Amino acid sequence: MAKSKFEYVRTFEKEDRCLQNCWIVVRVDGKAFHKFSEIHEFEKPNDVGGLKLMTRSAVNVMCEFRDIVIAFGHSDEYSFVFRKDTSLFNRRGEKLMSLVSSLFSSSYVFYWNEYFKQKKLLYAPSFDARIVLYPTDDNLRDYMSWRQADVHVNNLYNTCFWSLVNKGGLTNSEAEKTLRGTLASQKNEILFQEFNINYNNEPEMFRKGTTLIRKFMKFPNENESRLVICPYYGDIIKNKFWEENIEILLMKSAPAELYKEDIEFYEGKNKISLLK
Amino acid sequence: MAKSKFEYVRTFEKEDRCLQNCWIVVRVDGKAFHKFSEIHEFEKPNDVGGLKLMTRSAVNVMCEFRDIVIAFGHSDEYSFVFRKDTSLFNRRGEKLMSLVSSLFSSSYVFYWNEYFKQKKLLYAPSFDARIVLYPTDDNLRDYMSWRQADVHVNNLYNTCFWSLVNKGGLTNSEAEKTLRGTLASQKNEILFQEFNINYNNEPEMFRKGTTLIRKFMKFPNENESRLVICPYYGDIIKNKFWEENIEILLMKSAPAELYKEDIEFYEGKNKISLLK
Amino acid sequence: MAKSKFEYVRTFEKEDRCLQNCWIVVRVDGKAFHKFSEIHEFEKPNDVGGLKLMTRSAVNVMCEFRDIVIAFGHSDEYSFVFRKDTSLFNRRGEKLMSLVSSLFSSSYVFYWNEYFKQKKLLYAPSFDARIVLYPTDDNLRDYMSWRQADVHVNNLYNTCFWSLVNKGGLTNSEAEKTLRGTLASQKNEILFQEFNINYNNEPEMFRKGTTLIRKFMKFPNENESRLVICPYYGDIIKNKFWEENIEILLMKSAPAELYKEDIEFYEGKNKISLLK
Amino acid sequence: MAKSKFEYVRTFEKEDRCLQNCWIVVRVDGKAFHKFSEIHEFEKPNDVGGLKLMTRSAVNVMCEFRDIVIAFGHSDEYSFVFRKDTSLFNRRGEKLMSLVSSLFSSSYVFYWNEYFKQKKLLYAPSFDARIVLYPTDDNLRDYMSWRQADVHVNNLYNTCFWSLVNKGGLTNSEAEKTLRGTLASQKNEILFQEFNINYNNEPEMFRKGTTLIRKFMKFPNENESRLVICPYYGDIIKNKFWEENIEILLMKSAPAELYKEDIEFYEGKNKISLLK
Repeated sequence: MAKSKFEYVRTFEKEDRCLQNCWIVVRVDGKAFHKFSEIHEFEKPNDVGGLKLMTRSAVNVMCEFRDIVIAFGHSDEYSFVFRKDTSLFNRRGEKLMSLVSSLFSSSYVFYWNEYFKQKKLLYAPSFDARIVLYPTDDNLRDYMSWRQADVHVNNLYNTCFWSLVNKGGLTNSEAEKTLRGTLASQKNEILFQEFNINYNNEPEMFRKGTTLIRKFMKFPNENESRLVICPYYGDIIKNKFWEENIEILLMKSAPAELYKEDIEFYEGKNKISLLK
Repeated sequence: MAKSKFEYVRTFEKEDRCLQNCWIVVRVDGKAFHKFSEIHEFEKPNDVGGLKLMTRSAVNVMCEFRDIVIAFGHSDEYSFVFRKDTSLFNRRGEKLMSLVSSLFSSSYVFYWNEYFKQKKLLYAPSFDARIVLYPTDDNLRDYMSWRQADVHVNNLYNTCFWSLVNKGGLTNSEAEKTLRGTLASQKNEILFQEFNINYNNEPEMFRKGTTLIRKFMKFPNENESRLVICPYYGDIIKNKFWEENIEILLMKSAPAELYKEDIEFYEGKNKISLLK
Repeated sequence: MAKSKFEYVRTFEKEDRCLQNCWIVVRVDGKAFHKFSEIHEFEKPNDVGGLKLMTRSAVNVMCEFRDIVIAFGHSDEYSFVFRKDTSLFNRRGEKLMSLVSSLFSSSYVFYWNEYFKQKKLLYAPSFDARIVLYPTDDNLRDYMSWRQADVHVNNLYNTCFWSLVNKGGLTNSEAEKTLRGTLASQKNEILFQEFNINYNNEPEMFRKGTTLIRKFMKFPNENESRLVICPYYGDIIKNKFWEENIEILLMKSAPAELYKEDIEFYEGKNKISLLK
Repeated sequence: MAKSKFEYVRTFEKEDRCLQNCWIVVRVDGKAFHKFSEIHEFEKPNDVGGLKLMTRSAVNVMCEFRDIVIAFGHSDEYSFVFRKDTSLFNRRGEKLMSLVSSLFSSSYVFYWNEYFKQKKLLYAPSFDARIVLYPTDDNLRDYMSWRQADVHVNNLYNTCFWSLVNKGGLTNSEAEKTLRGTLASQKNEILFQEFNINYNNEPEMFRKGTTLIRKFMKFPNENESRLVICPYYGDIIKNKFWEENIEILLMKSAPAELYKEDIEFYEGKNKISLLK
C-alpha cells in the first residue's frame, strides 16, 4: 500500500514506555460525578447500586487485562494495578491508560440497566485516568493504603453530613458548618449520640471500599478449581491481607498461562473462606 | 482533613503538560473492531449505522470540549483537534487523552440503540487513544490529509474486496490474493468491469470520511444564528476547504465566550450551502 | 561479542526525542558563578575577559554543532538555538543538552589562559543546561528578546550598584537599599547625576549581550567568501536585526553542505557592514 | 523587577523530575574519543594517565555531589549513582545530567596537566551524558555488573588486538580479522601462546575498571576518621564487594550530615585493608 507524502506526521508521535520493573497503577476518576449522582438521584452518602456498577465495570476491565493483579475502588474512582513486569502493549502508558478509562466507561453504560432497573441513564458519563509508577512493593502498598484511608475519611464525613441533613433536618451549609474542624472521634460521637449509629457497624463496603483480587476457587460439581475475580471489603492497610494473599505481589513473574483460565466475577457468600 | 502518612505516594505522579502553542490531536481507535464488527454483523465494507454512531459519539465529545475545533473520523477511528492555545486542564495530556477516550466510549454505548434499533450490543467496546502535538498549521493540515488519504486507500481496497467476496463469490483469501499488489487504477477497473461500480459515485461519507466542524447557522423561526456542529463529507486535503472555513485555524485565539453558545449537532439538508 | 545477562538494564533507558519542527534551545548557566567570579576577582559589574571567554566557549560549541544557527549570551549564561529541522543525534534531547554543556565547560577551561594571562584558574567551573522547544519563529524571537531584555534589566542594576559601591563608597547592603524599588529612569538618573555616566554610552556588549551568527565574508586576498561566526552587540528585539539577517530563521531547511565550509570566528572591525 | 512581556516563554519549559525511590544513574561517555586518543597519542590498549585523569575528574564530580554513592568507569566512560532518595535539584533530570557532564568535562581539562606533564591538550574534549533510573537494588547491581562485564570483554579484545599490532606486527585490519569470532578462551590462548601474556596478571585497573566509593578512614596523626573517596579495582559483580561495603546501598536514607565531612580522594597503599 503506497505511503502518502503526509505520513511523515507519524514521526511527531512520542514513545511513552513505562519504566521497567515498576508497578503500574491506572486510576480512573468520575468527571463531575457530584452532578451526575444528583441528576440520577443516587442515595446519599452511599448508593449501593452505583457502587456495584463501578465494581462491575472494574471487573470487566480486569477480565480484559489479565495483567491487572488487584483493583481498588470507592465512590467514583477505581485503581488498577498492573503487575511489575507486564509487557502489555510494550508498557506504553498511553495505551494502558486510555484503554482502561475507555473500557471502564463503556462498561459503566453497558451494565447500567443491571444495577438501575427503574432508572434511566440520562447522559454518557466520563472518567479521566492517570498513570503512576511505583518502584517497590512498599510504595504500592502505601498507595493502596492511601486510597483506603481516603475512603475512611470521606465516608465518615459523608455519613455524618447526610445524617445531619437527612435525619437531623439541617441544611447542607449548616451540616458543613457543624462538621468543620471536627476530629474523627467527634464525628463518631455525633453519629452515636444524635443518630444512634455505631459507625463501625456500617457496611464494610462503605467503610473500606471494594478490593478486587483473583483467587482460585472450587465450585460445587466442578472438578477443577477456577481463577475468579473476587470482591473483598476488608482492611488492606494492615499486613494480614497481604500475607493471606501473598500471590498478589508475587504474581509479578507469573507465567502468562496462569491467566488463560476462564475468569469470572464471583461475589459469593463464602468470600471470607475464599480469601483464606 | 488530616493527611495520611501514605499521602507521599502522590509525589510519584508525573506532570505531562503539552508543549504550548502546538495543536493537540487526540485520536481514538477501536480495539479489536474487526471482531467487534463481525460479531455485531456490520455491513461490509461500510456499515452506515456504525459510522453514524461513531460520528454521534464524536459530536458528544465536541459538545463537552469546546476547545476542539475540528474532528475527523472513518472506520473505527476519530481524531479530535484542540486549538493551539487551549488551556483546558492546564494542557495535561493524560487528562485530555483519557477523557476523550472515556467519553467517546461511553457515548458509543449510550447511543447504540439510536443507530441499531434491532441489534443488541453484545459487549462493551473500547477505544485506545493517543495524543500528538503539531507545531504548525501546515503540520496539522498534513495530519488531517494523512488520515483522509488513509480513508481513500482503505475504502477503495475494502470496496473491491467485499465486492469480490459478496458479489463475486470469492473466498476471503481468494479476494486478498486477487488484490495483492494492485494499483488504485486497477482496483477502480475491477470495480467498474466486474461489478459495474463507478467508485467515484460511492457515497462521499465512505470515500472521504466525516469531518466535524462548528458553524454559525440561522434556523427557521429563530432570530439569532447558533453555533452548531456540522458534518462535512468532502475533501479536506485541498486548500478549498480551509479557505472556506478559515475560522478553524484562526479559532486558536478565539475568546472562550464564543463557545458558550448552545451547541448542537446539525446534519441538515442544506449542509452544502452552510459550508459556504 | 557475546551479550551479558546484565544487558537487559539497557531497556530501562528512555527515548527523549524532541518534537519535530520546533526550534530547540539549549541554555547553559553557570553554577555558583557569584562565588566563582569573586574568587577569580572578576571586575564588576562586567569583566571583559570573562565575557569574552564565555563567547569564545560558545563559538567552540557553534563550530562543533553546525546546526546551531544563532547563540546569545551575557553574564554567566549562553543560549544556543538548533535549527527547527535538525536531525542531529536524532533530536535526542539528552545528547544535545549534555554535549553542549560539556563542550562549553571544557572550552571554558581550555581557553581560560587566552583571556586571563596573569590569572590562574583555581577550580573547574560547571554549567547546568536546560532544553526548551519553541514551535514558531515568533516564540523563538520572544525567547531571544526575553534574554536580551534580561541583560538590560540586570546590567542597568549592576552598573548602578557597583558605581554606588566602587565609586560612591557605599557598602553592598547600602547600595542594595538605595536601589530597591527604583525604576529604570531613576537608575539612569543616579548614574548620570552622581557618577556622570550616560548609561547609553556604556559598551554595547555590556548593555545588549553578545549575539553570535554565521555570515559569509570575503577576506582580503581570498577569492571565495567564507562562512564565519560573527559577534553582534546590538539589538535583537526589534525587527531590524531579523530582517537584515533573514537567513537565520530560514536556515531551517538549509542543506547540510552549507555547513561543510570552514567555519571560524571573526571579530572584525567591520562587523557592522558585515551584518548588513 | 518588572517582568517583560516576553517572559511567557518560560512556560514552554518542561518539568522532568526523576521518579521517586529509584536509583539515578548518570553515565558520561567521551565523544569521538577514538580520534581524541589518537591525536593525543594515548598508549594502547590502556593509557594509565588517561584512565587516571578520567578517575580524577570523576572524583571531582563526587566531591561536588555528595549524593553520589558509587561511581564506576573505564575507557572513556564513567557512571555515577545518586542515592535512591536524593532530593538534589528536586530530582530534576536535566540539572543532574548536565551538571555531571559539565563538571566532568571541565575537570578533565583542568587536571590534564597533572597527568600529562609533557603532553599538550590540543582541543577541548566533550562527553555526552544520559540518565537512567533503576527501581531496585538488584537492577542497580545488574547495571554495575553490565558495565564491568563490558570492561572485561573490551579489554580482553583490545589487549589481544594491540598485542597483534604492536608486538605481532599485524596491520589493524589483519588483527581485526584474526580476532573475528574468537571466544574469550581463544583470546586468552593467543595472548599466552604468542605473547607470553597471562591475561589474569594484567593490572586490575585495566581488567576491572575503577570503582569509586566513600569510606571512613583514619589517617596517621589524626584523631578522627574522615570520609574519603577511594578507588577500588576489584570485582563488583559478585556479592562479596556489596557485602563488604554494605553501606553503599543502605546510604539511601543516610542523613545529609554524613556528607558534610571533608571529602577527599585517597588512593593509598592500604586500600585493601581499607575496603574491609
